[in-house]
Amino acid sequence: MEGMKFTIVGAGSSYTPELLDEMGMRKEQLPVKEIMLYDIDEKRLGIMEGFCQRFAKKLGLDVEIRATTSLDKALYGADFVDTQIRVGGNKQRVKDEKIPLRYNLVGQETTGAGGMMKAFRTIPVMLEIAEKMEELSPNGWLINYTNPTGLVTEAVTRYTNANIAGFCSGGIFPKMWAKRALGIPYEQVQYDYMGLNHMNFISNITIDGRPVTEAEFEKIAAQNDDVDLELIKLLGVIPSPYLQWYYHTNEKVAMFKAAPKTRGEYVQELEKDVYAAYADETNCEKPKALAKRGGGGYSEVAMGFVNAVYNNVDTKMVVNVPNKGAVSFLPDSAVVEVGCLVNKTGMQPLHVTEVPSMCWGLVAAVKNYEQLAVEAAVEGDVRKMKLALLAHPLVRQWEYVEKLVPELLEANKEYLPQFHL
Amino acid sequence: MEGMKFTIVGAGSSYTPELLDEMGMRKEQLPVKEIMLYDIDEKRLGIMEGFCQRFAKKLGLDVEIRATTSLDKALYGADFVDTQIRVGGNKQRVKDEKIPLRYNLVGQETTGAGGMMKAFRTIPVMLEIAEKMEELSPNGWLINYTNPTGLVTEAVTRYTNANIAGFCSGGIFPKMWAKRALGIPYEQVQYDYMGLNHMNFISNITIDGRPVTEAEFEKIAAQNDDVDLELIKLLGVIPSPYLQWYYHTNEKVAMFKAAPKTRGEYVQELEKDVYAAYADETNCEKPKALAKRGGGGYSEVAMGFVNAVYNNVDTKMVVNVPNKGAVSFLPDSAVVEVGCLVNKTGMQPLHVTEVPSMCWGLVAAVKNYEQLAVEAAVEGDVRKMKLALLAHPLVRQWEYVEKLVPELLEANKEYLPQFHL
Amino acid sequence: MEGMKFTIVGAGSSYTPELLDEMGMRKEQLPVKEIMLYDIDEKRLGIMEGFCQRFAKKLGLDVEIRATTSLDKALYGADFVDTQIRVGGNKQRVKDEKIPLRYNLVGQETTGAGGMMKAFRTIPVMLEIAEKMEELSPNGWLINYTNPTGLVTEAVTRYTNANIAGFCSGGIFPKMWAKRALGIPYEQVQYDYMGLNHMNFISNITIDGRPVTEAEFEKIAAQNDDVDLELIKLLGVIPSPYLQWYYHTNEKVAMFKAAPKTRGEYVQELEKDVYAAYADETNCEKPKALAKRGGGGYSEVAMGFVNAVYNNVDTKMVVNVPNKGAVSFLPDSAVVEVGCLVNKTGMQPLHVTEVPSMCWGLVAAVKNYEQLAVEAAVEGDVRKMKLALLAHPLVRQWEYVEKLVPELLEANKEYLPQFHL
Amino acid sequence: MEGMKFTIVGAGSSYTPELLDEMGMRKEQLPVKEIMLYDIDEKRLGIMEGFCQRFAKKLGLDVEIRATTSLDKALYGADFVDTQIRVGGNKQRVKDEKIPLRYNLVGQETTGAGGMMKAFRTIPVMLEIAEKMEELSPNGWLINYTNPTGLVTEAVTRYTNANIAGFCSGGIFPKMWAKRALGIPYEQVQYDYMGLNHMNFISNITIDGRPVTEAEFEKIAAQNDDVDLELIKLLGVIPSPYLQWYYHTNEKVAMFKAAPKTRGEYVQELEKDVYAAYADETNCEKPKALAKRGGGGYSEVAMGFVNAVYNNVDTKMVVNVPNKGAVSFLPDSAVVEVGCLVNKTGMQPLHVTEVPSMCWGLVAAVKNYEQLAVEAAVEGDVRKMKLALLAHPLVRQWEYVEKLVPELLEANKEYLPQFHL
Repeated sequence: MEGMKFTIVGAGSSYTPELLDEMGMRKEQLPVKEIMLYDIDEKRLGIMEGFCQRFAKKLGLDVEIRATTSLDKALYGADFVDTQIRVGGNKQRVKDEKIPLRYNLVGQETTGAGGMMKAFRTIPVMLEIAEKMEELSPNGWLINYTNPTGLVTEAVTRYTNANIAGFCSGGIFPKMWAKRALGIPYEQVQYDYMGLNHMNFISNITIDGRPVTEAEFEKIAAQNDDVDLELIKLLGVIPSPYLQWYYHTNEKVAMFKAAPKTRGEYVQELEKDVYAAYADETNCEKPKALAKRGGGGYSEVAMGFVNAVYNNVDTKMVVNVPNKGAVSFLPDSAVVEVGCLVNKTGMQPLHVTEVPSMCWGLVAAVKNYEQLAVEAAVEGDVRKMKLALLAHPLVRQWEYVEKLVPELLEANKEYLPQFHL
Repeated sequence: MEGMKFTIVGAGSSYTPELLDEMGMRKEQLPVKEIMLYDIDEKRLGIMEGFCQRFAKKLGLDVEIRATTSLDKALYGADFVDTQIRVGGNKQRVKDEKIPLRYNLVGQETTGAGGMMKAFRTIPVMLEIAEKMEELSPNGWLINYTNPTGLVTEAVTRYTNANIAGFCSGGIFPKMWAKRALGIPYEQVQYDYMGLNHMNFISNITIDGRPVTEAEFEKIAAQNDDVDLELIKLLGVIPSPYLQWYYHTNEKVAMFKAAPKTRGEYVQELEKDVYAAYADETNCEKPKALAKRGGGGYSEVAMGFVNAVYNNVDTKMVVNVPNKGAVSFLPDSAVVEVGCLVNKTGMQPLHVTEVPSMCWGLVAAVKNYEQLAVEAAVEGDVRKMKLALLAHPLVRQWEYVEKLVPELLEANKEYLPQFHL
Repeated sequence: MEGMKFTIVGAGSSYTPELLDEMGMRKEQLPVKEIMLYDIDEKRLGIMEGFCQRFAKKLGLDVEIRATTSLDKALYGADFVDTQIRVGGNKQRVKDEKIPLRYNLVGQETTGAGGMMKAFRTIPVMLEIAEKMEELSPNGWLINYTNPTGLVTEAVTRYTNANIAGFCSGGIFPKMWAKRALGIPYEQVQYDYMGLNHMNFISNITIDGRPVTEAEFEKIAAQNDDVDLELIKLLGVIPSPYLQWYYHTNEKVAMFKAAPKTRGEYVQELEKDVYAAYADETNCEKPKALAKRGGGGYSEVAMGFVNAVYNNVDTKMVVNVPNKGAVSFLPDSAVVEVGCLVNKTGMQPLHVTEVPSMCWGLVAAVKNYEQLAVEAAVEGDVRKMKLALLAHPLVRQWEYVEKLVPELLEANKEYLPQFHL
Repeated sequence: MEGMKFTIVGAGSSYTPELLDEMGMRKEQLPVKEIMLYDIDEKRLGIMEGFCQRFAKKLGLDVEIRATTSLDKALYGADFVDTQIRVGGNKQRVKDEKIPLRYNLVGQETTGAGGMMKAFRTIPVMLEIAEKMEELSPNGWLINYTNPTGLVTEAVTRYTNANIAGFCSGGIFPKMWAKRALGIPYEQVQYDYMGLNHMNFISNITIDGRPVTEAEFEKIAAQNDDVDLELIKLLGVIPSPYLQWYYHTNEKVAMFKAAPKTRGEYVQELEKDVYAAYADETNCEKPKALAKRGGGGYSEVAMGFVNAVYNNVDTKMVVNVPNKGAVSFLPDSAVVEVGCLVNKTGMQPLHVTEVPSMCWGLVAAVKNYEQLAVEAAVEGDVRKMKLALLAHPLVRQWEYVEKLVPELLEANKEYLPQFHL
C-alpha cells in the first residue's frame, strides 16, 4: 500500500476533527494520503472541509483532503470507510427520545423503542454503503460508529459481504477508568468482555497481569457514573454505563421527564455554537464545546483498528463481530461485542470461555430483540417490529406495543422507505 | 411389582381427592395397593384420611389407605411419592402476593419476588424428602407438583440423586383447549413445547397429524384466557397463561391492587368450606367448591406418568427435566419443561430442534433468574438472592432489589433456616 | 384416511413378501387398501405381482395389489413409499466387494469404498423419487431401506423436502437379542442408541425398567456374532455387528479373500432358486431360501413405523434423522441413527444426553466421510470423492485413494450420470 | 518483576543451548537474571552447566546460571519453567518405536501405541512438577515441550491448577515454510490453525493480509516434506507433517522396517558426539551435529511466549490449551492446539469459526484416543489403555490391542508406578 485513502461518511458531523486529531497523533504509524469527506448536507460538508484543511495543517498532517457528495466517489478505492451518519438528524433523535417517554418508557437513541427506530432509519442507508463497497472497495474496511452499532453491524454482516468492524468507545472504558482512577497506562490493563454493544459486562480485570484488588476494583467501578457503585460491587463485574437504563429504569425515566430538554435537543443547541466555531476561517482549533458532545474514545479505538490492520500488528480489541459460536448461548448469526485479535487479516473473536453467571439472561433477551429488529428493519415487516418490542426487556408489554407502533411509524415515515407507509 | 405403594406428601391438601379420582378412572391400568397419606398438619391429615377412605370406597378402589406424620414411614418403599406441599401455608402465600404489590410489582406465588420466596421456603424441605428417598425408596419416583415446580425440580436434580419428575398441568393445556374449543380428543393433538415451567411456548400444533388451520389456531388460542388473543395471533405460538405477568404486567398489577382480596386470601376462605365438607362423615363426594380451587389437569398428568412408567408404555409427556443440551441456548444444568418420552426407564427429553425466534430471550432471562434463585435457596446466600432478583425480568431494577430484600427476608424468617436470620 | 395406499419401489426384490407378511400380522391395526408394486425390471415385477396376489389371499389381506413400471403412478397419492432398490443390481455389488479387496481393504456394500460406490449409484435415483413425492404425494412418507441408508437419508433430507424416515433392522437388534438369549418380550427391553447407520453403539440396556445384570449383558452381547465377546465386554456398550469391519479388519479381509464367493455372488445364486419358487403359480408360501437372504427385522421396523404414524401411537423407535443438535458432537446437517419418538407428526429425535466415552471419535470420523460422500454423490465431484475416502477410517491412505478412484469410477461408469464420465 | 528466573527441567538435554541462544537474541527484551538447570542425570547436568556458562558468556548474556538435582529448588519462585524431559530416555523410546512395528503398526514416540507409552511414562512425572509449582511458583508458567505435548498438557490442565502452556514448533511451520519458499518475513504470514498437537490443519494462509495465490500455496506446501504434495493440493489445507503416519501409513511402516536403525537409535548415537562436544571445555559453540537432532523452532516459540507474557505484548501464537468450546466439535475438557492471543494474562483461544470440512472427523478420532489415554495414564487403568488403543485410528483392531497391551506394559514396567505392575 502506498499510503491510504480514508473516507468519512457523514463527514459533516462535528465529530470529524476528532478523527484527524488521532491521525495527527499516529502520523508516524499511519501514512494517510487522502481523507475523503462525504456528506449529503452540503453546507456542513463545506464548513467541515474548510476546517479540516486548516486543522490538518496545524497537526502537520501531510494529507490531501477532499469533499464530495457522490457516495461512489467517496467509496471508490477506499482503504477505510468510517461511517458516522445520523439519518433524520437530531430532529428525529428527539422523537426517539420523547415518544417512549410519554409511556414512561426509556427514550434513548441506542436502545428501547427509540433505539429501534434509529436502527430502522439507519440500516437501509448502511446496507447501501456496504453494497457499494463490495464493488468499489472490496478490500476496504467499513469502520462503523453509527448507533446502534450492534444492530447496524449485524444487518451489514447478515445481508452483505462487505468487511465491517463495528466499534464503540465502550470497548476501552475499563482502560480509561483505570487510568483516571489509578494512573495505570492502557497497556497494563486487561479484562474479559462479554455481551453486545451497550449491553456488556467486564470481568477478570488485571493490571500488569495480576488481578485487581478489591479496592482497585471499587475505584475503577466508581468511574462508571451511571450505575450505582453498590450494585456494581454486588455484581462483581462492571456493566456498561448503558445498563443504567435496565438497572435504574424508573429513576432514569423520572430524571428524563423532569429535564427541561432531551439530550437530542441539548445537542441541537450545542451544535449551533460548534458549527459557528468550525465555520470561522481564522479558527484551527477544535471548539471547546465539542468536549460536551460525547463520543470520547471512539477516534482512538477506530485508529487503533486502522493501525492493527494496516501495520499487521497483533492487537486485542473489543469489536462487534459475528458470533459463530464465540459466545455459546447466543445464536451463530448474532453480532456480539467481544474481545478480538485484530491484525491485517481482520479480526477473530476470542472464545468466551467463562460466561458471567449473573447477567447472561439479560444479554440473551436483548439479543433476541436485536435480531428481530434487524429483520424488521431490513424487511420492513411490522409484525417483526412488534415482536422485537415484545422481546425487548424495556418494553415487553403488549399494551405498550399496541400503542407505540403506529405512533413510531407515523413519526418516522419519511425515513422508512422499506415499510412502504 | 405386586401392586404399588403411592405416597402423598402434603396429603392434608384439599387437592388429594383429585388424585384418588384419577386412580379410580385408571383402576384397570394401575394396581395401587396402598395409598400413604403424609402431612405435618395432623388435623387436616385426619380429615383427609377419613374422607379418602369414604371416597375410595365410592370409587371402587381396592386399596389400603393409611396416614402418618412420620416422613420415613411415608417414603419407605414407595413406588411413587407425590409432593404437594405448601411450606408456611396460605398465610405466607399472602405475603408473597402483597409485598411485591406494594412496589407495583407482580405479587404471585410462582414467579417474581413472591415466587422466589416460595422457592426459598420450599426447597430445603424438598431436598430433605429427596435425600430420604435416596435411602428409603431408591427406585421410587418423586412426582412433584409443588410450585415453583421448575425451581424445585432443578434444586432436587442438582443437589440430590433422587428420581424426580416435575409436573404442571400446563403440559396438557393445548389438549384441553383443543378439546374444549373443537371437540378433538386428546390423542389427536400434538405440539412442540419449549421453555420452563410457567414460561413456555407451544408451536406446531397438529390435529391427527395435520397442522391446524388459522381458524383452529385462533379457537384454541382463545381458550387461553389470560393472554390477549391478538397478541397470541401475532406471536404465532401460544404462550403459557402465566405469560400474562410478562406481557400484561401493568394491567395485571392494577387489577391485583384493585382486588378486594389476593388469590391466597380467597383460597384461605374457600378452604374453610372445602374442609368442612371433607370433614362431614356422611359425605363421600368431592366438594363443589373444589373446582374453584384450581390445579385442574394435574392429577391427570401425574397419573399419566405413573401409567407410562409402571406399565412401560411409550408416552409423550411434558416434564421438567435436566436440560443437558436438549434446549441448545440454555445451560446443561438447567431444568427445562419440554416434551419427553416417558416409559419404565423414566423420561428422556426430545431434542428441541426448532427454537421459536420470538421468545427465546425471555426464556433465557427467566432461566438465569431461576438458577441464581436455586443457588440462593440452597446456600442461603443473600448476594445470590439479590442477583436473582436483578436477573428477573419482573424485578430487575436495583431500587426495587434494595428495598425488597430485607422486607422479604423479614417476612419469611421463620421458614428460612438456611439463611440463619 | 380411508385406508392407505402403500407403494413398494423396487418391488421386484425378493424381500417384498416380508412386507406383506408383516401387514398380515397387523391387519387389524393397518387398513392397507392398496399395495402398489413398482420396479424397472418387468420380469421380476410380474413374478412378484403374481406371488403377492396369492400370498395376500393366503394371509387374509383385504387389499388391492397392483403393479406398474410408471414411477409417477406408483408415487401418486401414496401414504407410504417403501424404497428397497439396488441400482446396478448384484452385478455391481460384486464389484463393490471385489475391488477394495484387491488392496486388502474391506469390500462391502454398505461401508468402505464399496459402500460409497453403492451410495453414488443410488443417491441420484433416490433424489428423483423424493422430488417426485414432493409433488405427487406431499404428505406421504418415504420409508427407506436401501443401503447405505444413512447416506441415502442424508442426501434426501439435505437436498429435498420429502418426508423420509431411514430404517435398518439394527434398531431392534437388542430387542431381538434379549428375546433370543433371555426370552424377554420386546416391550420390556429399552436402551440408549447413539451413532449412525451401521456405526452405532447401544448402552444402558434395561429389562422392565431395571438395568441388566452383568450376566444378562453378556448373554445379550453374545448374540452379536460378528464382534468378539471379550471386546464387547471391555467396551461395556454393544457395537453394531457392522463394527466387525473396524475392530476386526484384517481378520475379516482375510476371511473374504479366502471365501470362494462374495456375499453378492452368493445372493445372485440364491436368488435363482428364490425367484423360481416365487414364479411357481401353485406356490403361496415364502420360499425357505429367503431366510438366508438377510434383512430380518426390517419389515417389522417398517410396519412399526407405519402403525405409529397411521394410528398416531407414541412409539420409541430408532430412525435415521437429521441431527440438528441431538448428538452434540456431530454437525446439525448430519443424519444420525438415534432413538426417536414417532407418532402421526413424524419422528422427533430424543436428545442424546450421555455420549459413550469410548467410541464417539470413530462415529465422528465415519460421519465426516459420509458427509463428503453425500456431497460427492450429489455433485458428481471427484475431488470430494477422494476427500471422502481419505476421511474414511477403512481407507484413509493416499496410496489407496490414488489407485482406487479411477478403478471405481470405471467400474461404475454406466450408473454415475452425475460424474459425466 | 526484577529480572526473571528461568528454570529448565531436563536441562541435561542436548537441546538446552538452543534456549540460551534464543535468550541471546532477545536479550534486550528479556531480562533473564537466573537460569536454573535441573536434571536427574548428574553427569549430563554437569556437562551442560559447564557448556552453558561458556555459551552464555559468548552470547553476552548477563545471567546467573545454576544447576541442581533438587526439583524443589529448581521450581521455587521460578517465573518460567521449561520442561523437556524424556522419562526412560532414548532406551525406552526405541521400544516405543520397535514394538508396534512388529505388528506392522506405526512405531513412533508421539503417536500410536508408542506415543501412548511415552505419555504413560511422562504424565506422572509432569503432574508431580505441576503440583509442586502450585505451591512453589504459583504465578509461574510451565512451558512444556515434552512430547506428546498435547496429552501432557491435557493431563496437567485436567488434574492440577498449574499454569501450563504446551508448545510445539509446528505452530510456526507455515511461517518457516513461507520464509524458506518465498522469502516472506514471519510477521506477514497469518493462517488459521485447527486441531491437536501433531494432528492439525492449516488453512486460510495470508501474506500481508491477502490470501496466498495457488502458486504460493503450492510452494509453501512443498516445504512439508512428509506429506505428498498432490495430496496437500487436493486437501486445500496443509496438514501437520505428522499426518504422514495417517495418510501414508503403509509406506512409512515399510520405510521404518527397512531402516537400519530407528530414530531413537540414531539419536542415541548422535548424542555421543554431541555430548563429547559439549563436554569439551574449550568449546563454546553449539555442536554442528545438533542441527540433525530436530526440534528446530521450539526455542523461538517458547521465548516468543516468554516475551508476550513478560512484556505484556498482544501476540498471536499457537498453543495447546483447554478447549472449553473454542473447537465446537470437541469436548470442553479436551486440550486443543489452536491460535491464541497471548499476553501477560496468559493465553485465550481464538474461536475456531470455520472447521475445515475434510478432516474434522480424524481430529475427533485422535482426540477420543487422547482423552482415554490421559485417563489411563493418570489412573493406571488397563481397561482404559485398551479403549485408548481401540479408539486410535492407527491401531483400532482388537487383534492388535490384545497382543500389544501385555507387551507394552512389560517393556515399560519400571516406569509405570501408577499401574502397580
